[in-house]
Amino acid sequence: MSNFKNLVEKLKGLKTQDMFMNDFFLTWEKTDDELNAVWTVADALRDLRQRNISTKVFDSGLGISLFRDNSTRTRFSFASACNLLGLEVQDLDEGKSQIAHGETVRETANMISFMADVIGIRDDMYIGKGNAYMHEVADSVEAGYKDGVLEQRPTLVNLQCDIDHPTQCMADALHVIHEFGGIENLKGKKIAMSWAYSPSYGKPLSVPQGVIGLFTRLGMDVVLAHPEGYEVMPEVAEVAKKQAAECGGKFTVTNDMKEAFKDADIVYPKSWAPFAAMEKRTNLYAEGDSEGIKALEKELLAQNANHKDWACTEEMMKLTKDGKALYLHCLPADITGVSCKEGEVDASVFDRYRDPLYKEASFKPYVIAAMILLEKFKDPAKVLEQLEARGQDRIFSEK
Amino acid sequence: MSNFKNLVEKLKGLKTQDMFMNDFFLTWEKTDDELNAVWTVADALRDLRQRNISTKVFDSGLGISLFRDNSTRTRFSFASACNLLGLEVQDLDEGKSQIAHGETVRETANMISFMADVIGIRDDMYIGKGNAYMHEVADSVEAGYKDGVLEQRPTLVNLQCDIDHPTQCMADALHVIHEFGGIENLKGKKIAMSWAYSPSYGKPLSVPQGVIGLFTRLGMDVVLAHPEGYEVMPEVAEVAKKQAAECGGKFTVTNDMKEAFKDADIVYPKSWAPFAAMEKRTNLYAEGDSEGIKALEKELLAQNANHKDWACTEEMMKLTKDGKALYLHCLPADITGVSCKEGEVDASVFDRYRDPLYKEASFKPYVIAAMILLEKFKDPAKVLEQLEARGQDRIFSEK
Amino acid sequence: MSNFKNLVEKLKGLKTQDMFMNDFFLTWEKTDDELNAVWTVADALRDLRQRNISTKVFDSGLGISLFRDNSTRTRFSFASACNLLGLEVQDLDEGKSQIAHGETVRETANMISFMADVIGIRDDMYIGKGNAYMHEVADSVEAGYKDGVLEQRPTLVNLQCDIDHPTQCMADALHVIHEFGGIENLKGKKIAMSWAYSPSYGKPLSVPQGVIGLFTRLGMDVVLAHPEGYEVMPEVAEVAKKQAAECGGKFTVTNDMKEAFKDADIVYPKSWAPFAAMEKRTNLYAEGDSEGIKALEKELLAQNANHKDWACTEEMMKLTKDGKALYLHCLPADITGVSCKEGEVDASVFDRYRDPLYKEASFKPYVIAAMILLEKFKDPAKVLEQLEARGQDRIFSEK
Repeated sequence: MSNFKNLVEKLKGLKTQDMFMNDFFLTWEKTDDELNAVWTVADALRDLRQRNISTKVFDSGLGISLFRDNSTRTRFSFASACNLLGLEVQDLDEGKSQIAHGETVRETANMISFMADVIGIRDDMYIGKGNAYMHEVADSVEAGYKDGVLEQRPTLVNLQCDIDHPTQCMADALHVIHEFGGIENLKGKKIAMSWAYSPSYGKPLSVPQGVIGLFTRLGMDVVLAHPEGYEVMPEVAEVAKKQAAECGGKFTVTNDMKEAFKDADIVYPKSWAPFAAMEKRTNLYAEGDSEGIKALEKELLAQNANHKDWACTEEMMKLTKDGKALYLHCLPADITGVSCKEGEVDASVFDRYRDPLYKEASFKPYVIAAMILLEKFKDPAKVLEQLEARGQDRIFSEK
Repeated sequence: MSNFKNLVEKLKGLKTQDMFMNDFFLTWEKTDDELNAVWTVADALRDLRQRNISTKVFDSGLGISLFRDNSTRTRFSFASACNLLGLEVQDLDEGKSQIAHGETVRETANMISFMADVIGIRDDMYIGKGNAYMHEVADSVEAGYKDGVLEQRPTLVNLQCDIDHPTQCMADALHVIHEFGGIENLKGKKIAMSWAYSPSYGKPLSVPQGVIGLFTRLGMDVVLAHPEGYEVMPEVAEVAKKQAAECGGKFTVTNDMKEAFKDADIVYPKSWAPFAAMEKRTNLYAEGDSEGIKALEKELLAQNANHKDWACTEEMMKLTKDGKALYLHCLPADITGVSCKEGEVDASVFDRYRDPLYKEASFKPYVIAAMILLEKFKDPAKVLEQLEARGQDRIFSEK
Repeated sequence: MSNFKNLVEKLKGLKTQDMFMNDFFLTWEKTDDELNAVWTVADALRDLRQRNISTKVFDSGLGISLFRDNSTRTRFSFASACNLLGLEVQDLDEGKSQIAHGETVRETANMISFMADVIGIRDDMYIGKGNAYMHEVADSVEAGYKDGVLEQRPTLVNLQCDIDHPTQCMADALHVIHEFGGIENLKGKKIAMSWAYSPSYGKPLSVPQGVIGLFTRLGMDVVLAHPEGYEVMPEVAEVAKKQAAECGGKFTVTNDMKEAFKDADIVYPKSWAPFAAMEKRTNLYAEGDSEGIKALEKELLAQNANHKDWACTEEMMKLTKDGKALYLHCLPADITGVSCKEGEVDASVFDRYRDPLYKEASFKPYVIAAMILLEKFKDPAKVLEQLEARGQDRIFSEK
């Protein structure tokens, strides 16, 4: 049986009905079947595209993107996913928009959605804000749909919030699944999600949180390592703990990077800002206290600088399983001697893992496309089968 | 007979030939048949989309958008309309463009139009400029087409100028037609287009002008209300007066908001800047007199503040027909206690009309798409029939 | 035989295999057959579009654009070309992107290319940089493709670099070919590529270099005229000399505009900055020496002002062949009394040639589309034949 048929058969066995006409906020709000369906559809879409079979399921329609933070990878991934399915991206550039002072989210959300099939939002800067904003948008368009204002219910994809970065972590996981030859091979494997030093300030917590919130689902031995004071949101740590217990895995927190790297099968060393500091910053922004923000930034950079030894060096890598753990990063990484004097990772380590890192990134467009497809179609397996049967060329082929 | 067939039959009885290969500048330059055709095609396109039938009539082609003022609603409406018909929007961002100092409009217009099927322009800031600029663009591409420079004649849609806001007012009217169960039910109905207080400065005149220029066509009792000094362009008031006389309606101007609201079937309370002040501002900008502009702004805000009692309060609403007039607004509204301390409308009034207001806005993408379709096809009824017959899914359907 | 069939037959006789999966950097890196193929495919695509036959060869896919300099003409030409073939343009706006300080070109290039079929880059500001950057991008995606990171190899189109402006010059040449009734009629014809005075500063050298690097291929008598000190890159002058010798043409450099215009069949008067000054500027930018940049700008404007007599006046035009040389320009031109007090060309000369100038520009979208088509298809003649046979309407036609 072809790989594609296998994927479709697998999908048929998964319960995905609740994803239909629904949003994707946090991975831990989804069932195992639903996460599995995302990976399966992502692989199936990739298989079709590789065989030059068009996966356009929309003949018109908009994918609205709203980025409240600069982005290249996620922006292009969302644009690629929409294009792959036939949606045209329309960016809500808040700078160019006439969004009145005090205009409600409810109003803006409806005004941009008359012909929107999907909305992708990145809003990761402020603790307690991003995810809440996404929910407000989703509730608004749900109400608009029910009240007959919108002809279709645009569904939402969380392109990174203050809590989770589901499209990134689902792509990370799909990469790991491929590298280890299947999800079943991950049971018991050790992954070290570790803080690492960076000379820059205020990196979001959504990646480490997303990683511990997802990989504890897979029966893995998940270790979160960071210096004292770099704790993640306690609610997410709680989720990780609970899931590990339920799935026969482990979740440990340590302040020792070496302990985390010891015999690890996978390492994910990455900088982030302390949760408490991010909360403080959110409040300072709300108060418009620019002096306070500057002072905080200085303080945080000084705090970071106390932990320059938290780096993914060649020496650290030797501690891992056979010295060959799979190195993960969401990119761009702070590479020592390349993008900064001292950073998250040695240049030689990064170089050795360049190809796998880029492949890791290559799953993101497919993961997003899979989320959209599962949100918009009640019977995704049938859609995939019919796309194959339709056999429309993606690129015109000379016969 | 289905609603769609009714619409197509109605369209067949309307004379639309002069719209073909022509532009849409002002509603009062169009015949009754032509306005009717826009509403009819808008309804028909909506009907097709609701039945998941694709209305893509372009297999490639560009819709050029040029916004000289911030915009969310109109920008998304134009993008939606183009997408619905199969055109890709290409934004002429004057900031990112190499438009030489002194470069003629004629040159720019031709340079962006080699593969443009439609051009949408919003240029509403300066009295005597916006509409004139649109004509210059249209004349330029007409000349380019005749001289063999352009292979097709891109047609223009006025997305708001200094004189009219036809896509907004045509959407407003289509909403009203639906609410009152048909255009024939509007005869004799009273609509109050009233100034209302806003703490912001320099709102365009195009909406009140567009409303009196359009609704006087429908045999309605149109009352324009504003404080002294807030007159609209005299030419447009003249048009309204003449049309009312011809169509068996009325057009009155009053300085008493209560008089306007008294027994009104529809109210449209909205802030705008005095015509004379807008003219003065245009000249100050032309002279680059920034001190003068600041002084004028201060003066206008003070003048506005004298009229804080011009607000659509619950008390005012009680004066209308059975206390239940249909409340219209182009959005965003200045809502008292929500978007500002004192504004155009009470929060409780706005909330009560939220759904109808959003529905009002939902007609705009279809109105724009209808204008484009009528500009590009000689036999629009046949196009609609053939689109239905083609029956191409908008969203892939699992069979 | 129809024009289209002639073009396809001609294309069949040209060797284009090396263009497949390859990039387009400089015209002089391409064979005569390859340049000929670009013009032939451009004409054929235009012929199909004029007959309302869709030339969409991609059912999904992205065309990435990266403009490091403001642009209207080239930006719209690239967007038009992509749209014509079915690619959606995704702009890499470096301002809105999260491109880390020190992030490698290799990484960015791969991250934006997961679903990119073509990349268009304009980077013309710094000597020794633009073309080198394009090669780095092309090498990066080539490596990404070979390493299995990218599923397809995005090919590159140079939309203007520091050395050449191939899409402009190929469009210029196609215009000339049409005006003279065929490439064979250009042998021995004299073209004057002349510097002309402009009050602006630092115009790129890529147009004059592109013109002498291309037109010397056509057996023409190419004269490069400029004041002393306005030399172009010596390597390109060398290329022009060598090609002229090989192709039975001539390449002369003169400091006398009149000598260049004397009996010229074609004139291309245009301002550019001296190569030595551009090199100096590049270094000053690299050093961040803003005082030095200001001083250099002042110096260059003063130097320009010494040569106000270098203008394409009516008097100068009288020197040309029968006083009727074809006037070329890449636009926008600095027109005396229109866009500036004293500039490159008299208003009356410009006006007389407006239509041909706009037609010259109209070839650019087709030239870019032809480059893309030749880069993506092994058998372009078959593709064209099958597009004609498919006969898909570009604009829906009422039957």
